[in-house]
Amino acid sequence: MERDEGKRQIRLGLFVLHAGYHLAGWRHPEARSGGEDFGLMRETALTAERGLFDLFFLPDTPTSSRGASPSAAARLEPLTLLSALAAVTRDIGLVATASTTYNEPFNLARQLASLDHLSGGRAAWNIVTTLSGDVAASFGRAGHLPHAQRYARAAEFIEVARGLWDSWEDDAFVRDKASGVYFDKAKLHDLRHEGTHFSVRGPLSLARPPQGHPLLVLAGASDEGQALAAQVADIVFSAQNDFAAAQAFYAGVKRRAAEAGRDASRLQVFPGVLPILGATEAEARAKFDHLQSLVDMEQALPLLSFFLGHDVSGLPLDEPLPELSTSDAMKSRTELLARLARAERLTVRELARIVAAGRGHLVVVGSPVQVADTLEQWFLGGAADGFNVMVPYLPGGLEDFVDGVVPVLQARGLYKTAYAPGTLRDRLGLARPVSRYAPPLGAPRRGPVYSEH
Amino acid sequence: MERDEGKRQIRLGLFVLHAGYHLAGWRHPEARSGGEDFGLMRETALTAERGLFDLFFLPDTPTSSRGASPSAAARLEPLTLLSALAAVTRDIGLVATASTTYNEPFNLARQLASLDHLSGGRAAWNIVTTLSGDVAASFGRAGHLPHAQRYARAAEFIEVARGLWDSWEDDAFVRDKASGVYFDKAKLHDLRHEGTHFSVRGPLSLARPPQGHPLLVLAGASDEGQALAAQVADIVFSAQNDFAAAQAFYAGVKRRAAEAGRDASRLQVFPGVLPILGATEAEARAKFDHLQSLVDMEQALPLLSFFLGHDVSGLPLDEPLPELSTSDAMKSRTELLARLARAERLTVRELARIVAAGRGHLVVVGSPVQVADTLEQWFLGGAADGFNVMVPYLPGGLEDFVDGVVPVLQARGLYKTAYAPGTLRDRLGLARPVSRYAPPLGAPRRGPVYSEH
Ligand SMILES: Cc1cc2nc3c(=O)[nH]c(=O)nc-3n(C[C@H](O)[C@H](O)[C@H](O)COP(=O)(O)O)c2cc1C
Ligand SMILES: Cc1cc2nc3c(=O)[nH]c(=O)nc-3n(C[C@H](O)[C@H](O)[C@H](O)COP(=O)(O)O)c2cc1C
Repeated sequence: MERDEGKRQIRLGLFVLHAGYHLAGWRHPEARSGGEDFGLMRETALTAERGLFDLFFLPDTPTSSRGASPSAAARLEPLTLLSALAAVTRDIGLVATASTTYNEPFNLARQLASLDHLSGGRAAWNIVTTLSGDVAASFGRAGHLPHAQRYARAAEFIEVARGLWDSWEDDAFVRDKASGVYFDKAKLHDLRHEGTHFSVRGPLSLARPPQGHPLLVLAGASDEGQALAAQVADIVFSAQNDFAAAQAFYAGVKRRAAEAGRDASRLQVFPGVLPILGATEAEARAKFDHLQSLVDMEQALPLLSFFLGHDVSGLPLDEPLPELSTSDAMKSRTELLARLARAERLTVRELARIVAAGRGHLVVVGSPVQVADTLEQWFLGGAADGFNVMVPYLPGGLEDFVDGVVPVLQARGLYKTAYAPGTLRDRLGLARPVSRYAPPLGAPRRGPVYSEH
Repeated sequence: MERDEGKRQIRLGLFVLHAGYHLAGWRHPEARSGGEDFGLMRETALTAERGLFDLFFLPDTPTSSRGASPSAAARLEPLTLLSALAAVTRDIGLVATASTTYNEPFNLARQLASLDHLSGGRAAWNIVTTLSGDVAASFGRAGHLPHAQRYARAAEFIEVARGLWDSWEDDAFVRDKASGVYFDKAKLHDLRHEGTHFSVRGPLSLARPPQGHPLLVLAGASDEGQALAAQVADIVFSAQNDFAAAQAFYAGVKRRAAEAGRDASRLQVFPGVLPILGATEAEARAKFDHLQSLVDMEQALPLLSFFLGHDVSGLPLDEPLPELSTSDAMKSRTELLARLARAERLTVRELARIVAAGRGHLVVVGSPVQVADTLEQWFLGGAADGFNVMVPYLPGGLEDFVDGVVPVLQARGLYKTAYAPGTLRDRLGLARPVSRYAPPLGAPRRGPVYSEH
């Protein structure tokens, strides 16, 4: 551990889908799945903690995919599931995806703050504006908000949430039995936010979170998305499958953060990676081929259509993907897949099978050393601060990674050998946001109120 | 245990406020409190489970009381807290209060279903329309909805939630690796609800809850509230401090349920009770006097004002409470307190001190045998199926009850000596709601999909 001191190291998040990230992963003989199975999620979180993962990440859309992806057809709700996991884990960060388009700021800010308290400072929020317009119909909305409006609402939502988290100063609760004073009234603040999308008086009915503000994650790939991330995010998730493109994206994010006046090292970039592991490359290749043989085109085509923003079910399967106009929804992924199809002259069927495996993210098929090589290359080559690890199926796909790749990275000094103490922000080297009501610098210092628990 | 077979027994719920139910409970030398303290909540839940409590009940209002009650100034959010507790408890029912006025049906139905899965069928929902108009300002609303509209919205909200819980038939998920069929499409149903307050297409993105529908609790005391409870509730909470009035309320609820075409024994009535315990009556009395001496009028008067729906802070403290018109908000509690004040010719100060102790609920000061006597009288005398137990402070107030009163009730055969197996509904003798899409009677039976976990 000593030799790691101060050395920049790879961070790892686990991208969790109960049926596995590979579309046919659940069909693997060793796979378990179940969108309502808390036992599987607990086991997964404990294995991730054994592998010293920094983040346990749950994606979400408040609708059922109706079958394109078994994991998104039905699953436990992120904030409740992560709260349950908070009680049975100790160190891993808990990342809940929640939509700024389909929530009330007061309710969501409160639940995120509650999760941060329950977990002793391990809550993170993956801020999404929600891609699927399908959702609107379950929320009494005539339609999905247009992209720019979604992001305007998101920016204001975050502003409100941060304000609500600051409602109580860190040392507001004195609980003095002798005098009967439970809290210091001067340290309770109404937000009184009056904006375009929200009017929220506050205060929040919960003490300031241990992290000050839960960690903020953003995966917006559009211009608006990246601009917002540059301003407010602690971590940016992205989808990349090409080293040079990933380097360019990484540099762009850092530049934008610097332009927004921030220390760029405090905005960390995590591309996704799907490792398919075997003891040897040949074994890994055989496993990949087996998984690919299980892909059902009836599920793969809707998934491809989703990512392209175009219904491709009517296209001839064995001809090259035609040029498609980019859609409002997931422009960056559409472009990434179109680029890939062009470069490799892929047919619709071939592209659908690629999407079934990694959904456009980097797929690495190989031995633990080979996978570690790729991670090292991207990390040292300025393409990543960490990775969002997707596993093809649970629990085996994760165990392969934890038992195979993690020790290799550790031996290279590229990965921690124990969790650092403190909150999630502490562990990631991110400063605790100062409350907007904190006394100005130079005023008498007050001791910390929160200790780890 | 054998001799209890079939005998009707008292049910117990624990009404949980971190700072104790007694307004000054947190000032007791042995008290611990802390609205962000998960450790205290975990310990409380485990003690309640040691006492074989059926329910762990968290009240809630989505706003901060700003100090009238320390417990309501700041606290963990119910659905996240109960999810965390689900992971560390085994048997106790988990009752989340959530408002039909300040939530979206899709989001709330999903989180409640998720809690039911996480807990292996132990979720319950205390349905409230929210009393405090103060909340509106944090949800961008011009004002609180009027009482009748709140209940109309509540009734439709429940209808939508039940429909969403039925989205997937119990045996929809086949997960057949060989054929690649994850679920049976014929067993997935869109709700397509189009009503006055909501338009919700569905389906829910989560399998049907283990209980079919989470248990439904209602504490509405108004005519609308009782009418809704008679139609949909499994349990009714109430506030009573007079045996005869409690009998009349009990009979009224049962009659209404029967009129609504239900088996009245399936709608259970739980009045609240605050026991102050000592080894002897004298000891208990001394403890009560001590707690009363800690009451701060600056906190008690706002609490009294809240329950009366009138600001009483300007009234002369040592003169009798004047006649007050009843308010829209909490008519029944206002009437109960006004009746008490009249009958006992109480001054404002005296009434405020009574509210500080039990907020209008029955307060029993005595030895474990004396408290058990009162519970037995109410239970056998047709005033209660169970009790919502309030404790003056944590953790001692609860330990006193579990170690003192529970064994007395057990010795009398009035209380279980172990949890029954199954879901919360099973334990309370309540049938699992049949899905609206279940095949009609006589059609081939399908085996249960859920097992306990
Ligand atoms: C790793 C990763 C995970 C994502 N998870 C979700 C998710 O759970 N829910 C969601 O609505 N969108 C999710 N997205 C989509 C992004 O939030 C974003 O909408 C998308 O990248 C398109 O960018 P844009 O919204 O700026 O146009 C994810 C994207 C990536 C790269
Ligand atoms: C034991 C008990 C617990 C209650 N808990 C809550 C609560 O947590 N949140 C809330 O808004 N109202 C709560 N209430 C108030 C009721 O939901 C209801 O609004 C009140 O009894 C007045 O009845 P009405 O709404 O039919 O007029 C509670 C009432 C009782 C008796």
